[in-house]
Amino acid sequence: MRIGVLTSGGDCPGLNAVIRSIVHRAVADHGDEVVGFHDGWRGLLEADYRKLDLDAVGGILALGGTILGSSRVRPEHLRDGVERARGHVADLGLDAIIPIGGEGTLKAARLLSDAGLPIVGVPKTIDNDIASTDVTFGFDTAVGVATEALDRLKTTAESHQRVLIVEVMGRHTGWIALHSGMAAGAHAIVVPERPFDIGELAELVGRRFQAGKRFAIVVVAEGAKPREGSMEFDIGGKDVYGHERFAGVARQLSLELEERLGKEARPVILGHVQRGGTPTAYDRVLATRFGWHAVEAAHRGDFGMMTALRGTQIVLTSLAEAVEHLKTVPMERYAEAECVL
Amino acid sequence: MRIGVLTSGGDCPGLNAVIRSIVHRAVADHGDEVVGFHDGWRGLLEADYRKLDLDAVGGILALGGTILGSSRVRPEHLRDGVERARGHVADLGLDAIIPIGGEGTLKAARLLSDAGLPIVGVPKTIDNDIASTDVTFGFDTAVGVATEALDRLKTTAESHQRVLIVEVMGRHTGWIALHSGMAAGAHAIVVPERPFDIGELAELVGRRFQAGKRFAIVVVAEGAKPREGSMEFDIGGKDVYGHERFAGVARQLSLELEERLGKEARPVILGHVQRGGTPTAYDRVLATRFGWHAVEAAHRGDFGMMTALRGTQIVLTSLAEAVEHLKTVPMERYAEAECVL
Amino acid sequence: MRIGVLTSGGDCPGLNAVIRSIVHRAVADHGDEVVGFHDGWRGLLEADYRKLDLDAVGGILALGGTILGSSRVRPEHLRDGVERARGHVADLGLDAIIPIGGEGTLKAARLLSDAGLPIVGVPKTIDNDIASTDVTFGFDTAVGVATEALDRLKTTAESHQRVLIVEVMGRHTGWIALHSGMAAGAHAIVVPERPFDIGELAELVGRRFQAGKRFAIVVVAEGAKPREGSMEFDIGGKDVYGHERFAGVARQLSLELEERLGKEARPVILGHVQRGGTPTAYDRVLATRFGWHAVEAAHRGDFGMMTALRGTQIVLTSLAEAVEHLKTVPMERYAEAECVL
Amino acid sequence: MRIGVLTSGGDCPGLNAVIRSIVHRAVADHGDEVVGFHDGWRGLLEADYRKLDLDAVGGILALGGTILGSSRVRPEHLRDGVERARGHVADLGLDAIIPIGGEGTLKAARLLSDAGLPIVGVPKTIDNDIASTDVTFGFDTAVGVATEALDRLKTTAESHQRVLIVEVMGRHTGWIALHSGMAAGAHAIVVPERPFDIGELAELVGRRFQAGKRFAIVVVAEGAKPREGSMEFDIGGKDVYGHERFAGVARQLSLELEERLGKEARPVILGHVQRGGTPTAYDRVLATRFGWHAVEAAHRGDFGMMTALRGTQIVLTSLAEAVEHLKTVPMERYAEAECVL
Repeated sequence: MRIGVLTSGGDCPGLNAVIRSIVHRAVADHGDEVVGFHDGWRGLLEADYRKLDLDAVGGILALGGTILGSSRVRPEHLRDGVERARGHVADLGLDAIIPIGGEGTLKAARLLSDAGLPIVGVPKTIDNDIASTDVTFGFDTAVGVATEALDRLKTTAESHQRVLIVEVMGRHTGWIALHSGMAAGAHAIVVPERPFDIGELAELVGRRFQAGKRFAIVVVAEGAKPREGSMEFDIGGKDVYGHERFAGVARQLSLELEERLGKEARPVILGHVQRGGTPTAYDRVLATRFGWHAVEAAHRGDFGMMTALRGTQIVLTSLAEAVEHLKTVPMERYAEAECVL
Repeated sequence: MRIGVLTSGGDCPGLNAVIRSIVHRAVADHGDEVVGFHDGWRGLLEADYRKLDLDAVGGILALGGTILGSSRVRPEHLRDGVERARGHVADLGLDAIIPIGGEGTLKAARLLSDAGLPIVGVPKTIDNDIASTDVTFGFDTAVGVATEALDRLKTTAESHQRVLIVEVMGRHTGWIALHSGMAAGAHAIVVPERPFDIGELAELVGRRFQAGKRFAIVVVAEGAKPREGSMEFDIGGKDVYGHERFAGVARQLSLELEERLGKEARPVILGHVQRGGTPTAYDRVLATRFGWHAVEAAHRGDFGMMTALRGTQIVLTSLAEAVEHLKTVPMERYAEAECVL
Repeated sequence: MRIGVLTSGGDCPGLNAVIRSIVHRAVADHGDEVVGFHDGWRGLLEADYRKLDLDAVGGILALGGTILGSSRVRPEHLRDGVERARGHVADLGLDAIIPIGGEGTLKAARLLSDAGLPIVGVPKTIDNDIASTDVTFGFDTAVGVATEALDRLKTTAESHQRVLIVEVMGRHTGWIALHSGMAAGAHAIVVPERPFDIGELAELVGRRFQAGKRFAIVVVAEGAKPREGSMEFDIGGKDVYGHERFAGVARQLSLELEERLGKEARPVILGHVQRGGTPTAYDRVLATRFGWHAVEAAHRGDFGMMTALRGTQIVLTSLAEAVEHLKTVPMERYAEAECVL
Repeated sequence: MRIGVLTSGGDCPGLNAVIRSIVHRAVADHGDEVVGFHDGWRGLLEADYRKLDLDAVGGILALGGTILGSSRVRPEHLRDGVERARGHVADLGLDAIIPIGGEGTLKAARLLSDAGLPIVGVPKTIDNDIASTDVTFGFDTAVGVATEALDRLKTTAESHQRVLIVEVMGRHTGWIALHSGMAAGAHAIVVPERPFDIGELAELVGRRFQAGKRFAIVVVAEGAKPREGSMEFDIGGKDVYGHERFAGVARQLSLELEERLGKEARPVILGHVQRGGTPTAYDRVLATRFGWHAVEAAHRGDFGMMTALRGTQIVLTSLAEAVEHLKTVPMERYAEAECVL
């Protein structure tokens, strides 16, 4: 069998572990050939690739990033390229293509699959917001990095007697905020799923100070927004030079809370640190299993599908279903956090 | 409501997170009272306890160990103490008891539950071998510690051109060996579930050297044993002074492999390091959820039950079912590891 | 002997290790009594303190923050309080006072020492800019945290084909930027000691892209500034609400570099994460030694002095000398970084 | 200029950082050529080498192990090979050779230097026992790994109410034991420099239990030995199969302490984990500086020398002096540990 692999979208710890696992399973166990396309879909559209043998994946299991490179391709661009992709697949004699990527990538994968190409997707997102899998690799690492930062920030907040507003990743969903906030014992957790009322938040934090505590940690997902009318909010946009000029939710929250509480409040924006570097053991195991099962699916001819975790099992789920809707934090999960808004 | 809590059995990262979560949910949200028994069942049998308010659990979320202490009590001892326990429960006006512990503790919990005491169990084991839950807290930390050690050992094995035989925890099951071995890319993984053939193992490792590699890492669970007749094996025992004199599986394997392969082989025994210290974010979240749901179960009167993870949900499962059999590594999971024996 | 201890200024990993060491040495070995003043100089001025026995410092060695609390006191305030401090010292029967703090604290310490109070200072700053000691505790932890972040950011920068401008702490000196930049292999390091020329910096980074590399990491100390006339630069200030509105050097650099290089550039501001949490082993040992030697100095009557590291030895140096000038990065050290501007 | 590099002896975090630094400084800044010999002196004796350009050292800064391989060569073997080495050096047109290694390597380096070869040594040992430098790279990482393990073991020792005897590296000197023991707050530290009296040790640990504590941590260097007559001690040796059969000092101590104290005592042997894997930021900076200065020394013609850290400066010291005697822990340093034997 001949298998093509590509990684697409933003960085995510575990990408290399999937690539390695695919090559190990396919080459060592099945005697397949594997080629890796460079920079995601671009590589497929331009037939830019290299052969991946066992040596090519030596020592990459714990490495962040992706040895194949990545890129973001606009959907239109890909739509126009379906025939070109089909041609390259035929020329290269590929029996299966395994794209590893997030929501956008999986939508593109579905497009190609609907056009008849033999696709097995592997879901990837640090945000954990893909509906048909319990968890995606990269999420555990992101939560771990955020939690370690929160652990450190707690002692500083306490020494300085401040409120720290810590912004973590999550444009549409609050999974990282919820898990890192629970893991680190944050005093309030603000998620996009539930627009916050600034008054309520100030009261929650204020109660802590009234109870004699001298600091507070608020974890907020970058995509969190106030309830309408709750506070003036800069929803972002480009300035005249075309630069993003969104103040960021943490910065705006810290100004508001400082005024309402009369306590020093400071924003901390964790940013890209959450999405790179060595994956945790959990993510390496999940990524390795996804790769292994993707190869098995290809050998069984289970195309148009995506690997997914259900409980302790890796299953296949249809690409169509996978991208139908985002997996948001259910309010009953949010309630478990004890320190909800 | 008045709730008693105790921790029993070996150390496990996340115990304090459960205690904290129980107190937070019970005291802050329900207005309950919580008492903590000292040193596990001993505290219950001797009515040795202290009140746990919110301050008592401040700052313990990320702390290893257990603020309540732990101990191992012989089953007979507990059986004889049922009436005493019942008396203390009545005297203290307890409406629920939440024991946090492993297999032995849960068996004891069932005994007391069968005797009519209001019990909600919380499962705990770094070994991950309790059947009715997908995962137990402590396991992720243990795997993480073992994986980090394996990552380090790889470069040393390579520099010294050696075979390293790394013994990880797991007397009856190979979960830690499987997950850490997969996460670190071990070249062979030996688990108790499948007695190993020393010849097969030597061949597997030998093939690596024949392929030009200069080192190998073998991960072995402490409870792994050779297939009958495969090799002479010291199954352990006490010496004349009553000291354990089992050479350990890693040590015996390293001697055998050195002779068979003609390569330097060395044992590394990770030991207690795997079961202590700060829990990972994953374990803190799981432990916190277990605590929260145990309190909810108590308030609903769901006694004789135990918290469990199923997929992404916390559910209740009967104590009876929980301790019926160990959760061993299924052979199809083992096969995914690519480097199985 | 009766010894008073206080911690003053910003958070710094290792403060608790010093406190613990002082108590261990004084109480356990010399049979002294130790009291800890709350919230730095404020505690001394208001005679707000508590007794510190061995139990009071149990389990704090690896804990971030300070169990005594901290605060910043204005110099004038302290100057006016000298007589009050002297009175409290007499009332409490203190034979020595050990303030642990940074430049401001040591200046205050000198003031009190000049006024005749028996002071032994312990220097503290994550910035490593106190002249008379080779290193201060807290610095190694800050560098470690920044380096770990840089390690992670590298794979993301590479996957996203970006320039990342990472701002680390250091208002007046570039020690953290220099060490973390060297440790992580940054492609340019910008320090306050040498105002940067934006054209030169763009050229340095640009050469990397011309050589076929696809990403670059620039580490910049928060206090770095452009050479006069090199670029427009927002030097900060308060907005009409009194909020700090300095865009920050990393943000300004990323806009400039993006335009000059035609490559995506993004700022990452590590912030407070660098100054809190568990100290590294190095910092714990240094902090412990400082505490031990401060007690010895007090017993010898060596007042008006400060503990300092010289090579592998802890020595005493006069408080007067300690605060004379900042220890900046010498240009020959900067040159060793290979990727200097 | 043409420079040869080799790494020799046991694994040590930072080896790759030195290699990278040498190549960066020599190739990028001086326009030199660098070749790397494979497997230490063997590569030099057999002219087995490869060219090292900038790409060859890409991404290795944080990598454990050595990309050049290492080996141990017997002194006689090297003595016999001096003329062969001289021939290869001439054939390859090498102007300088930079061996990176420990005591044995530096002795060999001196031999070749005395024979007229142009040598600049770089000292390497996790044990920190080379006399003419304040610190060697690798040591900080080893201490960090041991300290993290000790942090974890403390909670387990406490939960299980045990004495844990933790054996760390250090055959001849107690630096790792001293620093990790101080950093983790061990209750006794046993070093080779001061033969221990088992009665004294038991009393020290026993006092802790009498004071109401429920656990103790003893850190012991692998090379520690009892004072003569203090206890029966297995000094090791080979069994009939030629296998090392030394019980190890931690194991023997734990049996003795268990009997004398009537408390459970268990040995933990950290082993190889201490000497591999990613170096700390501290070690990466030190290793990078050593490499940089070794190239500078070569360009100045300062042969027969070795790089060394003195305070905050890198200096050169003669190879002759470097290997004269081991740097042992001075008793006044040992006394600072507070919990000395």
